[in-house]
Amino acid sequence: MTLILSNDDVAKLLTVEECMAALEPAYVELANGKGVNRTRSDSIVAVRGKPDSVYGLKTMDGIVPSLGVGAVRINSDIISWPKIGNSQRRTKTPAANGRWVGLVLLFSSETGEPLAIMPDGVMQRIRVAAANGIGIKYMARADADDVAIIGSGWQAGTQLMAACAVRKVKRIRCWSPSAENRAKFAAEMTPLLGIEVETMPDAEAALKGAGIVLCSTSSIDPVYFESWLEPGVHLSSIKKAEIDNAALARCDRIALHVHEDKPLHFVEDGADAADAEVEKGWADKSGIDFAKLPTVGDLIGGKAKGREKPEEITAFLNNIGMGYQFAVAGAVVYRKAKEAGVGHELPTDWFTEDVHP
Amino acid sequence: MTLILSNDDVAKLLTVEECMAALEPAYVELANGKGVNRTRSDSIVAVRGKPDSVYGLKTMDGIVPSLGVGAVRINSDIISWPKIGNSQRRTKTPAANGRWVGLVLLFSSETGEPLAIMPDGVMQRIRVAAANGIGIKYMARADADDVAIIGSGWQAGTQLMAACAVRKVKRIRCWSPSAENRAKFAAEMTPLLGIEVETMPDAEAALKGAGIVLCSTSSIDPVYFESWLEPGVHLSSIKKAEIDNAALARCDRIALHVHEDKPLHFVEDGADAADAEVEKGWADKSGIDFAKLPTVGDLIGGKAKGREKPEEITAFLNNIGMGYQFAVAGAVVYRKAKEAGVGHELPTDWFTEDVHP
Repeated sequence: MTLILSNDDVAKLLTVEECMAALEPAYVELANGKGVNRTRSDSIVAVRGKPDSVYGLKTMDGIVPSLGVGAVRINSDIISWPKIGNSQRRTKTPAANGRWVGLVLLFSSETGEPLAIMPDGVMQRIRVAAANGIGIKYMARADADDVAIIGSGWQAGTQLMAACAVRKVKRIRCWSPSAENRAKFAAEMTPLLGIEVETMPDAEAALKGAGIVLCSTSSIDPVYFESWLEPGVHLSSIKKAEIDNAALARCDRIALHVHEDKPLHFVEDGADAADAEVEKGWADKSGIDFAKLPTVGDLIGGKAKGREKPEEITAFLNNIGMGYQFAVAGAVVYRKAKEAGVGHELPTDWFTEDVHP
Repeated sequence: MTLILSNDDVAKLLTVEECMAALEPAYVELANGKGVNRTRSDSIVAVRGKPDSVYGLKTMDGIVPSLGVGAVRINSDIISWPKIGNSQRRTKTPAANGRWVGLVLLFSSETGEPLAIMPDGVMQRIRVAAANGIGIKYMARADADDVAIIGSGWQAGTQLMAACAVRKVKRIRCWSPSAENRAKFAAEMTPLLGIEVETMPDAEAALKGAGIVLCSTSSIDPVYFESWLEPGVHLSSIKKAEIDNAALARCDRIALHVHEDKPLHFVEDGADAADAEVEKGWADKSGIDFAKLPTVGDLIGGKAKGREKPEEITAFLNNIGMGYQFAVAGAVVYRKAKEAGVGHELPTDWFTEDVHP
């Protein structure tokens, strides 16, 4: 039987800690040439009648032989780039009857069999946070206990969970442009974490004295700037563009999620909004040779040191997501779903065939 | 509701003729920069315990704005390369409980909504044949009525249907290495086409005098050679490697399916069998500048002529498949399935989400 799982199922079955535990050895395997990750591709066309939007069909694949799975993650998005506050955002419109469309398909790499289909939303924020959490584990000061977060959206919650999983966090401060959003976020996260999430009126107040700074926004403009740097801080970003180039250039150590970070773009002529994002989102004027930076696999595997001295300024850039992460997280979810008897079972024959494809 | 369709459904809903009719304008749109095709990617790892096999997770995407759809085609295959007769074949083992695994997921490019999920097998042979049929339509002699086919497998049947759809075919001869296979093929196809499929004991006997030669094999070595060329013949191939380089070099006109024909390979260290295929399958020693050849879209749109004189030797190379074709064919199948009330309906909410992915 092929399992159809919901986001609620995934939320019950997968914690940030479990995802980190599964990803750590898998990242080392990938760094050692075992398994594969297929670089994300974005296919983009104009949306008829909506000049400010594009349709994006984004896919990424990965195979983890040690877990016996491959995964394809698909996003089918109506995308626009509104200006909110000082930052240009990349937003997805829930145009499918008020809902978004993202799927993970999990296959057996031993038989090819389709094991499960599930939405990507819950898994995706957990795996993003797990990667940044591993970055904190290997790069932040061992005694870092004061966390600042820029952002109060969907990704921000799991980012805090990841930080709390790897450090004894005593204080959390949050800033985001909307007072309403950050208050809502603090109210939601404080009981979940058992640590008060303080809301701050400006970024500087939130950041002052923090040993760990989490950038967790949908901004494609920088949200963290050089003047805010303090000795010993660890900067954690869910995309490269969040940290200003001048701040990046002053970091003593930077590690990346993965080297190959340019998504493959296939863009319809005239779908210009997308080009704007491509140009801005990936512009790099830091002077840093990113190809020489260590990756998360290098940190875990011991090929690179995350930090040697307390006063070093470190940064982890979750520069692009990997289909490989969905295979790892999917394997955990699938195993636990089978054990717990969770999900809709559909005949596997619906998703296989008796003719040679 | 999201439709789950079977290969039987697709076989009832889509003919080679309908697929050609939908593809012709869509190919022109793509050649004119409307819509996009995302180059196929093959992610390949070793299969534990099966040294002669690899696991391949192959994906290709495409969006056809004029039809309001995007598609992702996924193959999850256990692949090996046995030597059969004189040719090395690329074969897929039906390891998923005796079945193969290929899927097409169809999405709305207006809302992102998942419209349908179906196996790829029937659609894939129809769209391959439709492309080669369009090649015949624009490149074969108008009076070509004698068809030879090399191959008697799954693809061969629709290749004959496509030839019969665009030319008044009077004679069909078939050769393939196995007498048993070609007899079975002839017995199956003769009533379907209403034309006797003659089986021949060797390739030369099958080819002599044919105005249209269809290569339709799983061979990754050449199966058609220079010495067999006759003036005025049209050669049709479902992959570049089937026609020997020397024969190709003597063609007066060659057209390709599409220019960008190197699949993106992501190969695990040591998954060597795959490398062998990559090296052999795409080796080109013909001296032809393939980048300058016209594509099927150029032929249909009138940017290139398929044939000017009866004695010209022409060739159409279906050099790589496109996710775009699955979007076109998928749109036809989906529309007809909705009209006919065919397929299993599942709640669309199972494949969408209320969180920002």
